[in-house]
Amino acid sequence: MARSLVFGIIGAGRIGRLHAENIVHHVPGVTLKAIADIRASEIQDWATELGIPIVTSHPEEIIKDKEIDAVIICSSTDTHVQFIIDSAQAGKDIFCEKPIGKSVDNIKKALRIVKESGVKLQVGFNRRFDHNFKRVRDAVTSGDIGTPHLVKITSRDPAPPPIDYIKVSGGLFFDMTIHDWDMARFIIGDEVDEVFAKGNVLIDPEIGNAGDIDTAVAVLKFKNGALGVIDNSRQAVYGYDQRVEIFGSKGAAIADNDSTNSVKIFSDSITKMDTIPYFFLERYLNSYVNEMKTFTSCIRENKMPPVSGIDGLNAVLIAFAAQKSLKENRPIKIEY
Amino acid sequence: MARSLVFGIIGAGRIGRLHAENIVHHVPGVTLKAIADIRASEIQDWATELGIPIVTSHPEEIIKDKEIDAVIICSSTDTHVQFIIDSAQAGKDIFCEKPIGKSVDNIKKALRIVKESGVKLQVGFNRRFDHNFKRVRDAVTSGDIGTPHLVKITSRDPAPPPIDYIKVSGGLFFDMTIHDWDMARFIIGDEVDEVFAKGNVLIDPEIGNAGDIDTAVAVLKFKNGALGVIDNSRQAVYGYDQRVEIFGSKGAAIADNDSTNSVKIFSDSITKMDTIPYFFLERYLNSYVNEMKTFTSCIRENKMPPVSGIDGLNAVLIAFAAQKSLKENRPIKIEY
Amino acid sequence: MARSLVFGIIGAGRIGRLHAENIVHHVPGVTLKAIADIRASEIQDWATELGIPIVTSHPEEIIKDKEIDAVIICSSTDTHVQFIIDSAQAGKDIFCEKPIGKSVDNIKKALRIVKESGVKLQVGFNRRFDHNFKRVRDAVTSGDIGTPHLVKITSRDPAPPPIDYIKVSGGLFFDMTIHDWDMARFIIGDEVDEVFAKGNVLIDPEIGNAGDIDTAVAVLKFKNGALGVIDNSRQAVYGYDQRVEIFGSKGAAIADNDSTNSVKIFSDSITKMDTIPYFFLERYLNSYVNEMKTFTSCIRENKMPPVSGIDGLNAVLIAFAAQKSLKENRPIKIEY
Amino acid sequence: MARSLVFGIIGAGRIGRLHAENIVHHVPGVTLKAIADIRASEIQDWATELGIPIVTSHPEEIIKDKEIDAVIICSSTDTHVQFIIDSAQAGKDIFCEKPIGKSVDNIKKALRIVKESGVKLQVGFNRRFDHNFKRVRDAVTSGDIGTPHLVKITSRDPAPPPIDYIKVSGGLFFDMTIHDWDMARFIIGDEVDEVFAKGNVLIDPEIGNAGDIDTAVAVLKFKNGALGVIDNSRQAVYGYDQRVEIFGSKGAAIADNDSTNSVKIFSDSITKMDTIPYFFLERYLNSYVNEMKTFTSCIRENKMPPVSGIDGLNAVLIAFAAQKSLKENRPIKIEY
Repeated sequence: MARSLVFGIIGAGRIGRLHAENIVHHVPGVTLKAIADIRASEIQDWATELGIPIVTSHPEEIIKDKEIDAVIICSSTDTHVQFIIDSAQAGKDIFCEKPIGKSVDNIKKALRIVKESGVKLQVGFNRRFDHNFKRVRDAVTSGDIGTPHLVKITSRDPAPPPIDYIKVSGGLFFDMTIHDWDMARFIIGDEVDEVFAKGNVLIDPEIGNAGDIDTAVAVLKFKNGALGVIDNSRQAVYGYDQRVEIFGSKGAAIADNDSTNSVKIFSDSITKMDTIPYFFLERYLNSYVNEMKTFTSCIRENKMPPVSGIDGLNAVLIAFAAQKSLKENRPIKIEY
Repeated sequence: MARSLVFGIIGAGRIGRLHAENIVHHVPGVTLKAIADIRASEIQDWATELGIPIVTSHPEEIIKDKEIDAVIICSSTDTHVQFIIDSAQAGKDIFCEKPIGKSVDNIKKALRIVKESGVKLQVGFNRRFDHNFKRVRDAVTSGDIGTPHLVKITSRDPAPPPIDYIKVSGGLFFDMTIHDWDMARFIIGDEVDEVFAKGNVLIDPEIGNAGDIDTAVAVLKFKNGALGVIDNSRQAVYGYDQRVEIFGSKGAAIADNDSTNSVKIFSDSITKMDTIPYFFLERYLNSYVNEMKTFTSCIRENKMPPVSGIDGLNAVLIAFAAQKSLKENRPIKIEY
Repeated sequence: MARSLVFGIIGAGRIGRLHAENIVHHVPGVTLKAIADIRASEIQDWATELGIPIVTSHPEEIIKDKEIDAVIICSSTDTHVQFIIDSAQAGKDIFCEKPIGKSVDNIKKALRIVKESGVKLQVGFNRRFDHNFKRVRDAVTSGDIGTPHLVKITSRDPAPPPIDYIKVSGGLFFDMTIHDWDMARFIIGDEVDEVFAKGNVLIDPEIGNAGDIDTAVAVLKFKNGALGVIDNSRQAVYGYDQRVEIFGSKGAAIADNDSTNSVKIFSDSITKMDTIPYFFLERYLNSYVNEMKTFTSCIRENKMPPVSGIDGLNAVLIAFAAQKSLKENRPIKIEY
Repeated sequence: MARSLVFGIIGAGRIGRLHAENIVHHVPGVTLKAIADIRASEIQDWATELGIPIVTSHPEEIIKDKEIDAVIICSSTDTHVQFIIDSAQAGKDIFCEKPIGKSVDNIKKALRIVKESGVKLQVGFNRRFDHNFKRVRDAVTSGDIGTPHLVKITSRDPAPPPIDYIKVSGGLFFDMTIHDWDMARFIIGDEVDEVFAKGNVLIDPEIGNAGDIDTAVAVLKFKNGALGVIDNSRQAVYGYDQRVEIFGSKGAAIADNDSTNSVKIFSDSITKMDTIPYFFLERYLNSYVNEMKTFTSCIRENKMPPVSGIDGLNAVLIAFAAQKSLKENRPIKIEY
């Protein structure tokens, strides 16, 4: 067997800890050597239990560690670009959580440096690795559905995050829809030319007071002429509603929600089933493992990661255009 | 267009009236000239509304009517054999409801006379014409599932009939399972060699007092070695549970219940759907129309009806063997 | 039983003949006395077979017939308004196919005369009577899904009509989407305030040459703040794709397509099912019967028909706005 | 947190290694100290990678290790009883794979010693911990389906094991159906009174030459009067078919197969889905984790394991009766 790769993680929030646990338990051939977080002391027990040797509050320790092959960036969005640049300049391969950043200029600069450094960069659009959505994409690339005409994405969270989070989230189109902008591009396999976004505050007036919307619909026009529709909600009380549909010249592929079990209960008044999975970890657990396995094998086999920096950038460009569309109530062209 | 065929119906109970209405509304090219019933006066208004010219309490009026091409026998089971014989000797084609009779000797005699007379005889196993079960059978004849190994039939009524009916019904295996004995033969395409039946009184002790069972399981062994399982209940409170599964060397085909609508309702506690169709008329409406259309086209095109007198007889033979098996708690060979 | 109502039909095209057959076979208590069509001679045999006494090429014969209670208008769209006015002035109750007209002024005039005459008018939005969509609406009115936030309608035809038809159809938004504008209003129970429509020619360039589009997406904003999305295609090769989803504060209701049968076939390579119903008659047959039964019982019980002239008008107003939106690539307010 | 429990595993075949990996990755608070296998050297690398300190070819090392709290017995069936006895006498809690043994007398002796020793014993009927079947059982215990009348179990393997394995497997009723005998008892919550088994060789004549059958149906009668049906096949080419249905006085609960993904692909000829999970590890992965977590928490909280030695014994008693029934072609009473 090949030598073990060595990874370090920057940021031990919910997603950083998730990646750490996945690497330790589910990604063979990778050693997780270090994790950096501002509150290093708070995660020490968890890290010890997991067998991570180094816990630090200094990310540069990870970036400068000669033994570390790749850096997994899970810190807050505003720090992504700088950590990408530093890691690239240190010759590390990079996995960066979404969104890749909030300044288009800075993202472009970081991507230039990544390119010059020759390191690999994968952006954390985990849903591309979901068993259902991957299958839908396969139905496109295999030719099963012919030329794509329309993609429809349903992406609805079970409950809104705290208002304090919403205030700093960058807004629905950056925080939630960022996944869906990428998913639309992934499924159709082409770039978005124009977006029209419509939204409203229907769930909680506090979200409106925070300057955001909680319910949204977006229409996409792709460069190849295909259309797209995305709908979002901050509160689907019935669970985490995550579906994708693609329609083309030869047919359609439709991914329904997963179910928590396959049981139907029949009575004299109704037929009932349990609710769909409620939380993103239940639904997307395997996709997080799969994206990290893919990143690892791209390093090992010296291949381009399938979710590139450009993928990270373009989703951000669409998000900006959608925000403008919402504000000005008109369709907006994406400027690449 | 060919000349209209002329039909007469003997027996205007629930099933007789159903066939009458289907013929008038849904079977083009057939004129329903007459209907006979003991309580002729009670059905006069209904028959007038439907446009049936003759209502009589004398079945022989129908059998002797030179203009009538075919007789639809919907009277009580104990009269079937005699009406078959009379109709055959009068040169009429015959559609006879199930079961064809309760005396094996008399059935055999009737079938002999039918054969000698050269008339057509179709037995009313309508479920062979059901859109779901027909599709399962097609999966067998097309070779899709390979060599059949096992057929499983779920056949459960929503509520038991009145005790007075049960007392004269001939018992569960003649009254309910008669359809399933035929369905098993139809799906597998072979004859049953042996049957083991097990039953119990779990729904209503009155059914037990009437000498019958209300819950049953039967295991079939076919001459070609395939196996079969049937389960019956007099009371599936959740609706009319009618399913068939076939397993073979190349795959399986499974017919689920129909649904009353396709809507799922998602809430924070459950996902719910409406109950399955409750009544046999909702479920099997089209199958009754299809069997009558098939009977009509067999007459028109001079073809053998697809559900023969032998099919009627063999289901009765299995029913007798199942009764014996239940009583003696051992598998019983069918004697053909 | 109450006396039989007497109906007359103007227009014996596909939909006129459908209503005729439904009235004769499935709507008890109605006599179909007359049918008018330019090509009266061509439908004579069909009408005789069905038992319609009068076949005429003069619609006024029906409108003037004292015995006729109600007129069913199934002629070409451009004649609807005049026949409504004439029928209303003759004191007949009116069932009019969709769209009710193409001139807003004329429709308004007709509705004024209908109101003054005190006759009943039902517009032929049959899909409101579909078992699935009616169930979705019930989930709204029952409070099951709470306050509506978003309605999504998928409405895709299996194959485009002939180019010659498309040229005179008034365009996709009048010809196909007219049903969906109404469905959106029906499900949400409120008026549309603004529409944004996006379309393209992805199926057949000839459709583009005829000045129409074949693929479209529309976003609706309702007066109550709810949002709506409709997607249309002239060619869903996999069948007639007709689905509705409603999302609200307490849950969601989703109507899937019907299936032609419930059978799944399992093999070593795939699991397969038959395609969904391909044609609108297969799918909506019962809805046509139900709408006519409802119209009949509204006359009998002197109740307002549930699909009014205003419903007919408002769908047309949205269609006009959608056309303008498509042309000008911006959202358009509906002017009521 | 409580001190870590220490486990040792005897037998490192497929199931032993599965339990080892589950314990290390998915059962918090347990240290896997040792694993014993005849071919100790062959598993050394695997064990090192997993972090198991001791690999030995001497099971008694585990049984005598003072630090070890519980022994997981995954060796061949004929060794189970002795290892149970030895572990119990050493004061270890015990998890033993199914079947618990093949000699009724020896099993009873072992259970007696377990009881006297006061250690815990859980038998490896993992399917009780399956998300689907557990949900079905919950529908019984919650009263949702009322008094149970009938349980139906479909249990079909994707492909037969090697003939050499079949020869020593103890036969279908011990090797495959052992899970289903337990499942039937688990779902109904009562003991089997009588079994009738019917089988045939339909898949591979070599299986018949080896003295076994490859296709089987069994009918159960429970002491409470409920009925049961099980069907088995050594070769369901379409995947690992694992379903359970329960019918009762108030309704029914039906567990369908899991799916590998939720995607349906619609074309002009068929609608298709991917095949169901093919292998028992795909389907039952979580159930193995859940049973081990349950065993662990029973030790921690000093509770009786939910799958007892009697459960292990009674499944074996039914298997013996089924073998006799098959041979003598008659129903057999279970002697407890």
